[in-house]
Amino acid sequence: MIRSAVHRNTGSALFLTTNIYIVGKRTGGEEWIQSGYSEYEKRLQPVMSMETTFLKSDDELVKVSRSLKGTTFALDEHGKQYTSIEFSNVLFEKGFRDGGSHVNFLVGGFAGLPAEIKGKFNLISLSKMTWTHQMARLLLAEQIYRASEIHKGSNYHKE
Amino acid sequence: MIRSAVHRNTGSALFLTTNIYIVGKRTGGEEWIQSGYSEYEKRLQPVMSMETTFLKSDDELVKVSRSLKGTTFALDEHGKQYTSIEFSNVLFEKGFRDGGSHVNFLVGGFAGLPAEIKGKFNLISLSKMTWTHQMARLLLAEQIYRASEIHKGSNYHKE
Repeated sequence: MIRSAVHRNTGSALFLTTNIYIVGKRTGGEEWIQSGYSEYEKRLQPVMSMETTFLKSDDELVKVSRSLKGTTFALDEHGKQYTSIEFSNVLFEKGFRDGGSHVNFLVGGFAGLPAEIKGKFNLISLSKMTWTHQMARLLLAEQIYRASEIHKGSNYHKE
Repeated sequence: MIRSAVHRNTGSALFLTTNIYIVGKRTGGEEWIQSGYSEYEKRLQPVMSMETTFLKSDDELVKVSRSLKGTTFALDEHGKQYTSIEFSNVLFEKGFRDGGSHVNFLVGGFAGLPAEIKGKFNLISLSKMTWTHQMARLLLAEQIYRASEIHKGSNYHKE
């Protein structure tokens, strides 16, 4: 596991961090979506911290994207689709390992990703279908949790 | 709209019906998933009834699949992926229109769809990624609601 490797190499309690930057209202989702997201956030706590920052506009997203540390993925409908197992590998290898334990996900507004972001980061797609920004956050959280369980070798992905 | 057309043609209050048949436990999902599903079920009530039947095994799913009326779609990771707009067209044209107002969705267990079902029905895929059966039900419910809003021409899909 990446986390253990980090421990062994540095002796410190370095921790995996995931930041989701998303254009849209924090309060734009129903309560059940918040509960679902919080559930995955909680389950992930022993392995990584996962935080969401809501942004008001695509311009703000572009501004944030200019000063990120770590590996950054951007959600785009034309991005690469992965199976959950492939996504787990990408997240832990290309993501946390190459990104010094930091991974960011960018989710644009309804108009799609700004060109500057499209040209700069790894584009991934959860599905050809459209989801609300809150639902996209929930799907992403579930797949990050699943990726972490796959990486651990637990039964979650096999049930 | 299909529903209005049905009204005009028959003069009766014929109603769209969607049945989801899914292998897995009714209680296998967290409360927030149930809330989410119920929310879409409620929002759909003016347009269609949407019901889920939980089945114990793939064998039961095969048995049920032999006596369905209407158009039947089966979820399969290798099935055809649609954008939400394409899915709306497929659901309302191929689905409700050709299926006499009845549409069924079949969701198999973790081992994937039984061969008999794979060979018989329209295979669709929500995503290359894997989801729990409860999460698949929630995603399906959201896309059925979205499809219905697209068909109506509401703003839901544009926001």
